[in-house]
Amino acid sequence: MKLRDIGEDRLLDRLLSRLSLGKKVLDGPGDDCALVETRDHQNLLVIKADCVVAGVHFLPTANALHVGWKAMMRPLSDFAATSAVPQFALITLIAPGKTKVEWVERLYRGLSRAAKRFKVSIVGGEMSGTAGPVAISVSVVGFVERNRCVSRRGGKAGDDLFVTGRLGGALKQKHLQFVPRIVESRWLTRNFPIHAMMDLSDGLGADLPRLAKASGVGFAIEMENLPLARGAKVDNAISEGEDYELLFAISPRERARLFRSWKKKFPKLLLTRIGSFSRLSTRNYQLLPSGYTHFQQPG
Amino acid sequence: MKLRDIGEDRLLDRLLSRLSLGKKVLDGPGDDCALVETRDHQNLLVIKADCVVAGVHFLPTANALHVGWKAMMRPLSDFAATSAVPQFALITLIAPGKTKVEWVERLYRGLSRAAKRFKVSIVGGEMSGTAGPVAISVSVVGFVERNRCVSRRGGKAGDDLFVTGRLGGALKQKHLQFVPRIVESRWLTRNFPIHAMMDLSDGLGADLPRLAKASGVGFAIEMENLPLARGAKVDNAISEGEDYELLFAISPRERARLFRSWKKKFPKLLLTRIGSFSRLSTRNYQLLPSGYTHFQQPG
Repeated sequence: MKLRDIGEDRLLDRLLSRLSLGKKVLDGPGDDCALVETRDHQNLLVIKADCVVAGVHFLPTANALHVGWKAMMRPLSDFAATSAVPQFALITLIAPGKTKVEWVERLYRGLSRAAKRFKVSIVGGEMSGTAGPVAISVSVVGFVERNRCVSRRGGKAGDDLFVTGRLGGALKQKHLQFVPRIVESRWLTRNFPIHAMMDLSDGLGADLPRLAKASGVGFAIEMENLPLARGAKVDNAISEGEDYELLFAISPRERARLFRSWKKKFPKLLLTRIGSFSRLSTRNYQLLPSGYTHFQQPG
Repeated sequence: MKLRDIGEDRLLDRLLSRLSLGKKVLDGPGDDCALVETRDHQNLLVIKADCVVAGVHFLPTANALHVGWKAMMRPLSDFAATSAVPQFALITLIAPGKTKVEWVERLYRGLSRAAKRFKVSIVGGEMSGTAGPVAISVSVVGFVERNRCVSRRGGKAGDDLFVTGRLGGALKQKHLQFVPRIVESRWLTRNFPIHAMMDLSDGLGADLPRLAKASGVGFAIEMENLPLARGAKVDNAISEGEDYELLFAISPRERARLFRSWKKKFPKLLLTRIGSFSRLSTRNYQLLPSGYTHFQQPG
């Protein structure tokens, strides 16, 4: 069997479940970030690595500034998902010898600008040649207060499901210029008990089932409430991905206060209740337009 | 200008010197590992990322077990250079869709075995497709006691220069199966004041000048004393690289005690004094066989 014939989630589950993790690891493979214990009893150490590859995550003709920005912001979006504070980043650049030095300098400018936006220090860089396309891997290290860290696993049946911003259409331009929702996520965990959270990188249709599965619950989405980006249709919002918005679960008891405080704090950023978590035992098939069967979830 | 026309050291120096590092960064770009401050006042946080690429660091026909081993051991060798303790690792796999799942499973077995050897927990994995060759990036996080961390910068004129093991011929097989000198490095800093240290990945001819430059000193090598691997000649030892042995500088006052204790502790591993650091102001050209001009260093 080849990689293209097996789901990435399934393979990674299989590969990583065999590993013995050690007792200092609180959240490991499968969550947005790895969370580990250190001698600092108040905080957890947070680690994340991610990569972008030419032809997969950006077109070879893309502006190198934007490529660098995206390469840095992708792992930072996982920090947002965990409500963690990023501090240090390492860059690994894999590029063919024919790559122009000027392109690499622009790439680093993009990486550096993105890092500065969140006060992240770039503390190391490695380079390797390749016979293939350019790839940039960025590793980020930071921390989260023990009582503010959020994973995918705490969602409860009955929880409201919220998303920030608007979904769909990100592939046109936004995916190269998005700002991870770190400020919003930090504000949320300072002011509200967030049960479960993730960032939307593969599209609601792929990501929401992951959040529900990790929390051991079902879900119901109110399709008519999905906050669509300008020009986007429901299927763009569900299937395209690269939105890098937050999806989170919170008790409906907080709903009124959340809406009120959010509007005051982030008047320009939409916050939308898109549905709720449900008991896994009820067969909560979605009433979805046909064609979205991959989005359905047997109870 | 293209990447192939500019030295990696020079380009990285240029790119990374522009970055503002923040006051928590003690050792950043250019050293073997990044060292940063945390709330733990006794220890420093140590971070390193490195990658291996098919066709560059291994042949596409290499045993995937060995590829995984090497991918993990390369950043761990940088931990040895810093005398740091590795704890957590993240894997990023970039591979074409045609890659066999079985190959990836063997790769992960190699990564996992290498990690276990040093009690490192693999806490996360990412995957991306590519139209090019397989690449594996490994990021490692750990710690070093503030009073035991070693950089490339502490060497003094008059210091003895030592290397562990034997040099040359590593490209035949050793580069896929080497064991980073973490145990030896930890023992060294527990028992001796090591002034400067690095791991030899690019060959003594490229690496020793880096160590000397970072320490602001010159050097003199006794070529006849170089510990050669079986079948290797002096130019293999100098130019080939991939030895992953330690090169370190220590006061000659420690020489007798170092040799005596080393033989007792590591009876099977050679330790060789190969020369010394000298004042930078004396024009200490090497008496080297012609052809090694890249190994000479003007004072």
